[in-house]
Amino acid sequence: MKGKFITFEGCEGAGKSKQIKLLREYLQRNNIKYVLTREPGGAVLSEKIREILLSSDNAEITPVTEALLFAAARAQHVNDVIKPSLEQGVLVLCDRFIDSSLAYQGVANGLGFDYVEQINNRAIDGCYPDATIFLKITPEEAFSRKGGADLNDRIEQSGMDFHKKVYSGYLTASKVYTDRFLPIDCSGTVMETHNKIINALKDKGILP
Amino acid sequence: MKGKFITFEGCEGAGKSKQIKLLREYLQRNNIKYVLTREPGGAVLSEKIREILLSSDNAEITPVTEALLFAAARAQHVNDVIKPSLEQGVLVLCDRFIDSSLAYQGVANGLGFDYVEQINNRAIDGCYPDATIFLKITPEEAFSRKGGADLNDRIEQSGMDFHKKVYSGYLTASKVYTDRFLPIDCSGTVMETHNKIINALKDKGILP
Repeated sequence: MKGKFITFEGCEGAGKSKQIKLLREYLQRNNIKYVLTREPGGAVLSEKIREILLSSDNAEITPVTEALLFAAARAQHVNDVIKPSLEQGVLVLCDRFIDSSLAYQGVANGLGFDYVEQINNRAIDGCYPDATIFLKITPEEAFSRKGGADLNDRIEQSGMDFHKKVYSGYLTASKVYTDRFLPIDCSGTVMETHNKIINALKDKGILP
Repeated sequence: MKGKFITFEGCEGAGKSKQIKLLREYLQRNNIKYVLTREPGGAVLSEKIREILLSSDNAEITPVTEALLFAAARAQHVNDVIKPSLEQGVLVLCDRFIDSSLAYQGVANGLGFDYVEQINNRAIDGCYPDATIFLKITPEEAFSRKGGADLNDRIEQSGMDFHKKVYSGYLTASKVYTDRFLPIDCSGTVMETHNKIINALKDKGILP
């Protein structure tokens, strides 16, 4: 495989979309060919699975069903899109990947990091990212930055507990996968964070 | 759980549908309350997954995606239909269950018995059948009985190799799960096989 594989991870409100947009613009300015994809979805069959995952009348989906569906969509996405692109030497940017499952299904939903890792290891068939940009900002900071999250609201606070678990799941993943995790401090401006990402990718030899 | 859980397994052409029909008629004659369900499917969300699994434009589905989708559908089916029925003391008949995955995805598709067992153990969350009626007839016998399968046809013979692997997968499962497997000799007439099933279920204390 000649292409490099970069994934973006982080809690809700961490600024993933903005940073992906800035990285794409950087790649375009520097004539670096890339494909952008996302999870869940990214391939025809995986998008059908995404529809099931996101459709509101499936509110009663069990945590195990959810984890298996994410892994199924990922297996097809890797096979149909990610591997073929990498084999053609193309840089692949993916908005969420295996670490989202480890953090959300494994830790926050309580299925266990190891179980979710097990099913996903087989699903991605060795196709680990070369670099995982982890936008390292706690959910409390992310919420306060955007002026949201009422601290006296029970529902929002219950949501906050979930997001704290997601964050701790990411911290665990970053310790297990030190070789590929690039934790990015997001305390500065959007452009400062962008520059940290570019520098981290250059240091790792992913970008020239 | 008060209800008993009976699954039906076997290769293509083994006569599952006929035997399920005869068992239902027996249960009705004896005023035994039951529900009949099937896999993949059996619950609203699981039927949506079934559509993905069976739709012809998904010919390129990978073996891992397929195994994960079957397990996802099963997890929801157990949660929504099988466990609630058993908790109400109802007998559950299920046309195919975990052993189909072990035989078809695990052995015939080459994913490995252990991997498929692992993902499914968590999916069924302890809800193993009390009895698994295994219609024990080799695919060669099943094909010859119905006068099908051209021995000189390359495609049909390739299909036959697959079905032989499925059969060997069932044999492995029957050795691992001796406590619940009821291998039924199918060499006699349909009614003889039916009587063997009734006797096996009575011997096991599933039927009065």
